Amino acid sequence: MERTHENGTLRKENAGQTVTVVGWVNKRRNLGSLVFIDLRDRSGIVQITFDETMASQVQEVRNEYILQVTGTVQMRSNPNPNMATGEIEILAQKVTIVNRAETAPIVIADDSDTGEDTRLKYRYLDLRRPVLQKNMILRHKICMIARQVLDEKGFIEIETPILARSTPEGARDYLVPSRIYNGKFWALPQSPQIYKQLLMIAGMEKYFQIARCFRDEDLRADRQPEFTQIDIEMSFGDENTVFGVVEDLMKAIFKGTVGYDLEDHFVRMPWEECMRRYGTDKPDLRFGNEIIDLSGLFADTEFQVFRSVLDAKGIIGCVKFSNAADQYSRKGLDKLQDFVKHGFKAKALAYLKMENGTLTGSIAKPLSDAEKAAVCDKLQLQDNDLVLVIADTPRIVQSALGALRVRLGHELNLIDESVYKFLWVTDFPMFEYSEEENRWVAAHHPFTAPKEEDVDKLFSDPEHVSSRAYDLVLNGYELLSGSIRIHDQELQEKVFEAIGLTMEKARERFGFFLDAFRYGTPPHGGVGIGLERLTMVLAGTDNIRDVVAFPTTNSSLDLMSESPNVVDQAQLDILGISIK
Amino acid sequence: MERTHENGTLRKENAGQTVTVVGWVNKRRNLGSLVFIDLRDRSGIVQITFDETMASQVQEVRNEYILQVTGTVQMRSNPNPNMATGEIEILAQKVTIVNRAETAPIVIADDSDTGEDTRLKYRYLDLRRPVLQKNMILRHKICMIARQVLDEKGFIEIETPILARSTPEGARDYLVPSRIYNGKFWALPQSPQIYKQLLMIAGMEKYFQIARCFRDEDLRADRQPEFTQIDIEMSFGDENTVFGVVEDLMKAIFKGTVGYDLEDHFVRMPWEECMRRYGTDKPDLRFGNEIIDLSGLFADTEFQVFRSVLDAKGIIGCVKFSNAADQYSRKGLDKLQDFVKHGFKAKALAYLKMENGTLTGSIAKPLSDAEKAAVCDKLQLQDNDLVLVIADTPRIVQSALGALRVRLGHELNLIDESVYKFLWVTDFPMFEYSEEENRWVAAHHPFTAPKEEDVDKLFSDPEHVSSRAYDLVLNGYELLSGSIRIHDQELQEKVFEAIGLTMEKARERFGFFLDAFRYGTPPHGGVGIGLERLTMVLAGTDNIRDVVAFPTTNSSLDLMSESPNVVDQAQLDILGISIK
Repeated sequence: MERTHENGTLRKENAGQTVTVVGWVNKRRNLGSLVFIDLRDRSGIVQITFDETMASQVQEVRNEYILQVTGTVQMRSNPNPNMATGEIEILAQKVTIVNRAETAPIVIADDSDTGEDTRLKYRYLDLRRPVLQKNMILRHKICMIARQVLDEKGFIEIETPILARSTPEGARDYLVPSRIYNGKFWALPQSPQIYKQLLMIAGMEKYFQIARCFRDEDLRADRQPEFTQIDIEMSFGDENTVFGVVEDLMKAIFKGTVGYDLEDHFVRMPWEECMRRYGTDKPDLRFGNEIIDLSGLFADTEFQVFRSVLDAKGIIGCVKFSNAADQYSRKGLDKLQDFVKHGFKAKALAYLKMENGTLTGSIAKPLSDAEKAAVCDKLQLQDNDLVLVIADTPRIVQSALGALRVRLGHELNLIDESVYKFLWVTDFPMFEYSEEENRWVAAHHPFTAPKEEDVDKLFSDPEHVSSRAYDLVLNGYELLSGSIRIHDQELQEKVFEAIGLTMEKARERFGFFLDAFRYGTPPHGGVGIGLERLTMVLAGTDNIRDVVAFPTTNSSLDLMSESPNVVDQAQLDILGISIK
Repeated sequence: MERTHENGTLRKENAGQTVTVVGWVNKRRNLGSLVFIDLRDRSGIVQITFDETMASQVQEVRNEYILQVTGTVQMRSNPNPNMATGEIEILAQKVTIVNRAETAPIVIADDSDTGEDTRLKYRYLDLRRPVLQKNMILRHKICMIARQVLDEKGFIEIETPILARSTPEGARDYLVPSRIYNGKFWALPQSPQIYKQLLMIAGMEKYFQIARCFRDEDLRADRQPEFTQIDIEMSFGDENTVFGVVEDLMKAIFKGTVGYDLEDHFVRMPWEECMRRYGTDKPDLRFGNEIIDLSGLFADTEFQVFRSVLDAKGIIGCVKFSNAADQYSRKGLDKLQDFVKHGFKAKALAYLKMENGTLTGSIAKPLSDAEKAAVCDKLQLQDNDLVLVIADTPRIVQSALGALRVRLGHELNLIDESVYKFLWVTDFPMFEYSEEENRWVAAHHPFTAPKEEDVDKLFSDPEHVSSRAYDLVLNGYELLSGSIRIHDQELQEKVFEAIGLTMEKARERFGFFLDAFRYGTPPHGGVGIGLERLTMVLAGTDNIRDVVAFPTTNSSLDLMSESPNVVDQAQLDILGISIK
């Protein structure tokens, strides 16, 4: 089928040329004897003018008809500066109706407000929206660049099974019944974790895979039952090696897609410091307003609220917002109080304001003059500054103030939306205490290596064992997580013991994998990068469905194909299963 | 971890340098006070020499231990011409045992004859074999090149769902029970066929995906339950467009992996001609020996066998093998006779031999002198030529002679193993008659377009309707298949009708897909390339497990992870299914 140009590429330089284009009718306007048609293909839209001699041939044409048009490019008398091709138009000389279209059930335009469910049902039409096509191209580009960078560094992509073995840890598995072995099942992998570690044991040294993963979770808005991970693992390296690879990867992706130059090395911060300064392990570093610990100023306080918190080993923390006091009335502050009480179990939110040189606010009265002076001095308070104060357990102070920091960051427009701030969070706790199971469990997964200097605390002080797990955080989102893995069998056994797993139980759960450790396992580590999250950040969208070609609803329904759906009894019979 | 060089890259140019290498102990030889260790990494093997001062440090070292060695590269006194690094060795100055290894249950060497089941159980050790590592790298390279070529041509990779809707046509689906919607199921896709056509309707124009596909078949030796397809679809093109893209892709892949220059355009042959000349739709064009129809010579024959075959609208076909008569004794020819009788239902195999200027053989006597002269003339027979003759229905003559051609091609070494011969087979029959269902069914799939000039025969003469389906055949293997699809709703309905499918039934089976056709569907077509088959051809192996990282047995068992396996009752309970 003849086609000399893509619609969105035509410019004034093409004026005078005879071109043939194809595409979908985006809009049609009838101006008496003239007909104007905006013809859309993947590259963009061009205006085609049908004069009185041609207009009759497109009388039946409606939106979403497919046309092939030959004509001459000419300058427009009234250019449209909002269109890339707005300086020119094509004067039609020949038109072929390639295919007809019924009236589409959704409006194909970026500004349409058709409900999302209808859009999902007609996803193949919704995908005609230029913004979704751009997102698909962006996602493709990210993957192309990722593969290019990793290939150049000697990584090879290896496909690991989708029909895998069920592992009883972590999220729920999707199961696949076997026809040949009735009563037995495969599981769809939650990640290629075990396979990629086996590939390191197999001597592949540098592996990656842009891998489909599956989690049967009750979905949140930003999750899908299947998702994709840029999965990387390497041997004979440490954190520096892994970080170096990921940083180069990110630099290439951000440069190659949005033209943004990332800094050469990303900031690193141990988890403990991260929690202390930002109250979260996913801090948004695009603005300051860190949490400041005021406990030291109140060591001898007579203010009863602070006194009892400090006596109970709590802390007094605050976040300062410069020049913001006048933006938070009593009512506004009450809302913040509700926010931290209900969302973070804080007992209360106190505040101070510097107004005309005087410290006012909910705790201005009970504090002594010396204490107030100390606060003003420590925080370098100036007129109209607002200070939010919480006195509580360290964990509650951190999480509540961390959340307030982000909330006011947005409300006060403190965040520079034009920058990308990366942060490596390192030294995560190795274990967390499960109240449910009444034991220490692995915070990351039980194959994550503890920090060498903490190995002797595995049993005596598990709470303070740090691991070699790390996250990469971008603008407050977790972009990836990973770790250096255990490669020593004895250490692996110790870690199992520390989480109350006997070797017997460990073998039951991870038998074939544990066997593999016995035959020469190299030191290794890696990461899994969430492709959807990365694409969302670069596309500037908060809706995961904007970066997935055929997404499901939040309750994992595909409204287009109506799946999952019922199947024939015969299909179940040969699988040896029945529906209860 | 320090590492200055990869083991397999060291050459005499490195002599005198101090290097640090890491890797697995491939072999260890104790020569009195000297110890030699072959150290293997992904790049290859290098010999390390430990002199009397160092030997004691590696006394405990056994095969598959991981070592880090620093030493000086020096020229070997006895070079090994069979090793890429055979001219040099490393004289060890420092050694660290990175990890220990128990005695491996399989021998890690290319020539080992450990049974395949044991190798599969310890796949992570078998993958240490250099030949398997090379195959994984080859597979990676093929994918890198494919993506590069397609990206440059404006194709974008789009991921389609793995949790898809069950389609009741084709091979058996793997099913996935839904936890949220008990009693409903997803199916793992047999190919992204419907999704990629929807992407064309969505205006994506040029799509590809290196896609995982699933078929729950009783496995053959060259199949796996999951496999990978280089899946391509494009709009606004025809066969020439599709073939051009695939030819450029193959040229780049063959050049980039094995350094082979393919011809600029591949041979094309309609299916009918292919069957006539080679008796198969997958002909191996690396040698001649085509089927020749002798029926015309025997129009007036009095030889009763030929007479009755011709009267019954059968044909008399033959294949000539030059200078091969002396290689097939009566006993050898009897074997060939058994082969065509049992494998292809041929009633008999006749033969002629030119021996010392005289035509001899099983049918030399019953033929008249004129007939014999005509045969000699038509076949240009020379001394020691062998002619295999079958008189039967056209289909049996073609398939039996086609198989004999390939068998003797191998037995007589007529095949040049160093060349790659591609062939496009086109114009496949649109329908084939199903004796089972007593109706015409789609030979490819019901979305394949019929040839335009045959549309009016859809009902009057379905047997002779050709389709726009095509295969690409390489050296006798089907490498891909594809078609130009129907994009016109009326034609689609006609085709359904021709295969006895009412619109009601069609809607039941393909409803959402049929709906999509109504809103502006572009002409489109594409292919699916079997990645494993392509990799096997380039790797020169007949075993699909040589090109899959974690393969299953022929009965779809993963011997390494022992999956499929039993799962907890609780897991089944939340899925609302039970085992019968």
